[in-house]
Amino acid sequence: MLAAARGMQVLYRFPSRHIPLWFAHPPHSHSTPPVLHNKTCLRPLHRWHYFEDASSPLTRALITAGIFLHDAFTYTDRHIDRVPVSPLALHPGRGGPKNLPIVERLLSDIEDPENAKIAEKPHLVIVGGGWGAVGILKSLRPGDYHVTVVSPETYTTFTPLLPSAAVGTVSVRSLVEPLRKIAARLRGHLMCARAVDIVMSERLLEVETISPGGPGKGEHIYVPYDKLIIAVGSTSSTHGVSGLEHCFQLKTIGDAQAIRKRIIDNFEAAALPTTTPEERRRLLSFVVCGGGPTGVETAAEIFDFCQEDIINYYPKVCREDVSIHVIQSREHILNTYSEAISRYAEKKFMNDRIDLVTSARVGKVLPDRVVYTVHTPDGTIETHEVPTNFVLWSTGIAMNPFTQRVSSLLPNQVHKKAIEVDAHLRVKGAPTGEVYAIGDASTIETSVVSYLLDLVDESDKNKDGKIDFDEWRVMVNLIKRRIPMAESQLEEVRELFDLYDSDADNSLTLNELTVLLQEIGNKITALPATAQVAAQQGEYLGRKLSKLARQRGTLAANGITGGPGADEAVSGPFRYFHLGTLAYIGNAAVFDLGRTSFMGGLAAMYAWRSVYWSEQVSSRTRALLMIDWIIRVCGAATYRVYEHENCGLVPSVRSAPKARHGWFR
Amino acid sequence: MLAAARGMQVLYRFPSRHIPLWFAHPPHSHSTPPVLHNKTCLRPLHRWHYFEDASSPLTRALITAGIFLHDAFTYTDRHIDRVPVSPLALHPGRGGPKNLPIVERLLSDIEDPENAKIAEKPHLVIVGGGWGAVGILKSLRPGDYHVTVVSPETYTTFTPLLPSAAVGTVSVRSLVEPLRKIAARLRGHLMCARAVDIVMSERLLEVETISPGGPGKGEHIYVPYDKLIIAVGSTSSTHGVSGLEHCFQLKTIGDAQAIRKRIIDNFEAAALPTTTPEERRRLLSFVVCGGGPTGVETAAEIFDFCQEDIINYYPKVCREDVSIHVIQSREHILNTYSEAISRYAEKKFMNDRIDLVTSARVGKVLPDRVVYTVHTPDGTIETHEVPTNFVLWSTGIAMNPFTQRVSSLLPNQVHKKAIEVDAHLRVKGAPTGEVYAIGDASTIETSVVSYLLDLVDESDKNKDGKIDFDEWRVMVNLIKRRIPMAESQLEEVRELFDLYDSDADNSLTLNELTVLLQEIGNKITALPATAQVAAQQGEYLGRKLSKLARQRGTLAANGITGGPGADEAVSGPFRYFHLGTLAYIGNAAVFDLGRTSFMGGLAAMYAWRSVYWSEQVSSRTRALLMIDWIIRVCGAATYRVYEHENCGLVPSVRSAPKARHGWFR
Repeated sequence: MLAAARGMQVLYRFPSRHIPLWFAHPPHSHSTPPVLHNKTCLRPLHRWHYFEDASSPLTRALITAGIFLHDAFTYTDRHIDRVPVSPLALHPGRGGPKNLPIVERLLSDIEDPENAKIAEKPHLVIVGGGWGAVGILKSLRPGDYHVTVVSPETYTTFTPLLPSAAVGTVSVRSLVEPLRKIAARLRGHLMCARAVDIVMSERLLEVETISPGGPGKGEHIYVPYDKLIIAVGSTSSTHGVSGLEHCFQLKTIGDAQAIRKRIIDNFEAAALPTTTPEERRRLLSFVVCGGGPTGVETAAEIFDFCQEDIINYYPKVCREDVSIHVIQSREHILNTYSEAISRYAEKKFMNDRIDLVTSARVGKVLPDRVVYTVHTPDGTIETHEVPTNFVLWSTGIAMNPFTQRVSSLLPNQVHKKAIEVDAHLRVKGAPTGEVYAIGDASTIETSVVSYLLDLVDESDKNKDGKIDFDEWRVMVNLIKRRIPMAESQLEEVRELFDLYDSDADNSLTLNELTVLLQEIGNKITALPATAQVAAQQGEYLGRKLSKLARQRGTLAANGITGGPGADEAVSGPFRYFHLGTLAYIGNAAVFDLGRTSFMGGLAAMYAWRSVYWSEQVSSRTRALLMIDWIIRVCGAATYRVYEHENCGLVPSVRSAPKARHGWFR
Repeated sequence: MLAAARGMQVLYRFPSRHIPLWFAHPPHSHSTPPVLHNKTCLRPLHRWHYFEDASSPLTRALITAGIFLHDAFTYTDRHIDRVPVSPLALHPGRGGPKNLPIVERLLSDIEDPENAKIAEKPHLVIVGGGWGAVGILKSLRPGDYHVTVVSPETYTTFTPLLPSAAVGTVSVRSLVEPLRKIAARLRGHLMCARAVDIVMSERLLEVETISPGGPGKGEHIYVPYDKLIIAVGSTSSTHGVSGLEHCFQLKTIGDAQAIRKRIIDNFEAAALPTTTPEERRRLLSFVVCGGGPTGVETAAEIFDFCQEDIINYYPKVCREDVSIHVIQSREHILNTYSEAISRYAEKKFMNDRIDLVTSARVGKVLPDRVVYTVHTPDGTIETHEVPTNFVLWSTGIAMNPFTQRVSSLLPNQVHKKAIEVDAHLRVKGAPTGEVYAIGDASTIETSVVSYLLDLVDESDKNKDGKIDFDEWRVMVNLIKRRIPMAESQLEEVRELFDLYDSDADNSLTLNELTVLLQEIGNKITALPATAQVAAQQGEYLGRKLSKLARQRGTLAANGITGGPGADEAVSGPFRYFHLGTLAYIGNAAVFDLGRTSFMGGLAAMYAWRSVYWSEQVSSRTRALLMIDWIIRVCGAATYRVYEHENCGLVPSVRSAPKARHGWFR
């Protein structure tokens, strides 16, 4: 790598024309080429036949030899013949409630001895390909499970940098990593399919395969599992606003590319001489609905783009006519961050002349404008319109169809937004230890009171039907073990006891306990639906599952076979460690680290980059991202390049996002 | 750059987790974090709060300081207000035969004094954004002309590497360069529009602007010019084959991305357990129609992809079932190259088990197979079918609509494939010196006999109506000056004279001359329609136009004002210097350098890469390409990544290629 980087440095220093070509001799090498006689003095365009500067022949020779040797040994002439394939993979049997094919064996399950060994292990099926799924894949130990990833896309996306990709600061290629590559470490498999249903009694997951023929043309099949992990993420919520088909959202690479194309198209159309000034202002008006990190970062990136690229390459009047609007329903943007950070970001946006509209709700979105209402302090409601040709919708999340389906099959699932799981991330109501859910698709239960009877049972030592203070201390520990998120509410043990001991008899009755536990539960804040949470949950679950696999013998010896009690025996509950949240706000960044905040200009921006860089899923994306940023810094590519794909020419197989967010464009 | 490269090297050595964060202190820094008490030993996923290895703090500090300072000085807080814009740019007047707006002034023409000076120069309009256009833009001298580039796309593409991009070896971003950036050197302008018509008498070019509303919604306007250069390229010819809407072609970035998506989709579908073996073989059958460089290189890249990526990440049975077919109408592939090269490539393909079908013509293309006929040596015609889910059509070129229109407006234009130009690249039949054509859209006249009377007039010194040998020698030089391509036919001066002097009277009559010149003309091979030719023509024209501008005063003093004679006064005719053609054939490459050929394995492949690397249009793409190749070599990304754009979700503004190659997908 050192050699290659040095090579890059050397070659870059002679960027233009001195390229070695030691073996092909140019024609007419011993006579003056006839073309130089005439008056045009036509210099050949390609100068590769000039030999390079003698100043570093040894370096180049070494680099080239190194690269040459490496390449020579990595290229393979392998031919593949007569690969063993299980008959069950070629002709799966049918079964299950809908009598669909059950794929007990996959194509590559017996193609070599290692795969065959793994095929005999318990089958772990992961539904989804985002942060949660990757967290599991990276922390599982190879050889413990036969892993299958069911995902409509073949790659995972580094979502925090999507706003940068949407404007072109980083290339989309730096943000994706193929799932097959991540799963290869475990000899895992990828199935390009979308989960649609589940049969928990028979441990079957029903999926619809992604067919080249287009959406809806895939086959429905059953994928059997021993353990299933639901990590499908979420969709965006509409809040009942009409016209969302005219909006963009920013959840996938495709979204980022669509946004990039629209932004550039707007500028190009604005630069045409036939565009009226009014139309130009409409084309260059960018509206972001939602003042959370995604919306704020996208607005900041668009601003950067205008400052760095538009000024340099487009008519300056285009820069003059640009307006960026952020419409936020709360009083402040970045309201999930600390107050200091909110204020800092708002001040910066005001300096940048970004139009911040808070306490506003979007009423509807039309093809050429956005209508919103503002609640003024004196109680009136004003309606405003913003003409625009670009609207980004980035507010809130909602359940995706598969999550809704699973939720409807479970008893006691009352949560509207996600599947309820316990502190061990097991889905409540499903057979214990068989179905897990992590990430946006799940929410950890916060209802302490539902364990009332169990808790009383375990802590009431003298069985008097009441809980005295010592028993209460025992109960507090039991609660913390079951629902670690309640910890912050249980710090003042004595005070709580006294507070709820309404009859002051130094003991808590069941009624008093009910009230106490109810109120504790109400105060617990659910974990946010962020990448950090999903990644930590994934890593926790991967380690736990590996432990379960390794200690199966020990557990059996202790009488624990199968679900109940197994998770608790090998691991504690999931605990989320909030490392802080970041947001980029335009050559500046803010960090909310819980007890401290940090915000600032370039230094913070570099910290922001450092964090995201270290969080990359692979060396490849790390390298690519570093390169994107180096190139940007060196100014060699301050002009963000836009590939314009001929969208529409090829029917898209990758239609999953469209189906999921059907009304988004 | 050294610092940045070293930085990349340093940071890469610590790729995982040691990232400096000097300013944010982690919470709980002076007490054991509570999360480590429990049994899970949950290590935080993100380790950025560890400080890095002390072994290179100085280096890092220097790098960071360097990058920091650079960034600090390149970021701008400029605000743009009250930009001067010409009223003619905001409200163009109307005129011309169709009474459309005439854009005499563009939006940025007077936004600063330098632009205003340039706006007074002669207006040069370049239609097209490919090799020819870029050749001109790079060789014009700044300040000579007000340059406008009319192109439906905002960027230019490095087409020779499209086969690599189609399979994912290089990223499309490395192959595109924004036209605005290339034109910025000349303070040139880009108009996103498609040329549709021309009014040569009034020097107006009619264009249709690209509208965000979609194809057909743009406005028609006139762009006035003093000099017009047609560099629109060509489309693919259909040879009357039906079913071409099921085929891909490879002319643009969009094509490359569509092909990449289809290839990956095929493999994913083939890996599904529900795919029958027969369907799998069809999905993994890749057919390339056309045995020229594009087709051969794409077949070779697909083969590489199978050898390097499929084997490692997909079920091996997928590799086993792959078949690649190349259908060529001639007897040999790469038939425009030397024979040795053809044979080498064929031998390599046979070793790679690529199915080569020569002397075959594709009859029709169906959604699931290709039907072709083979002429066997004994005269029979056999029909064959190949089941497939991927067909690449890469045969021959045809005129695009604008070229056809221009051709129809000119007298004496009989060429079926391109606009005829003289040796100074001026369009024949257009007002002299006002309209030029280069690249695929043009063909240099080879008809010597059309100059018969002029030639006789100039060489017949004694005016006897016949040409003796001395006068013949004079005529030969005159011919070479007008039509340099005839040179190779005029080497044997004496022999030609004797051969055509049928009545052996040591002089050539008009009739004999007619026959002689006709036969010479017939033997001249037109220049191939390649990037090399277009680029050299562009560079030639750019230099000549700059000379014309600079020497306008001198020319006027000599009585040359305007078109006729001006080009000849400042420059000789265009001469093409063939530097050789290359093709990549699968970890091997072939070079045809005219008199010598070179072919070989890895060494040749590196030469191939060197040449393309040196031919990049900018440092940015050079750097990106080098990085693509380094990453590939280092094996850090042997897995070609595929972004799956949500094609179809956003109506495409960039519809030019679709309209141009309407029946391609």
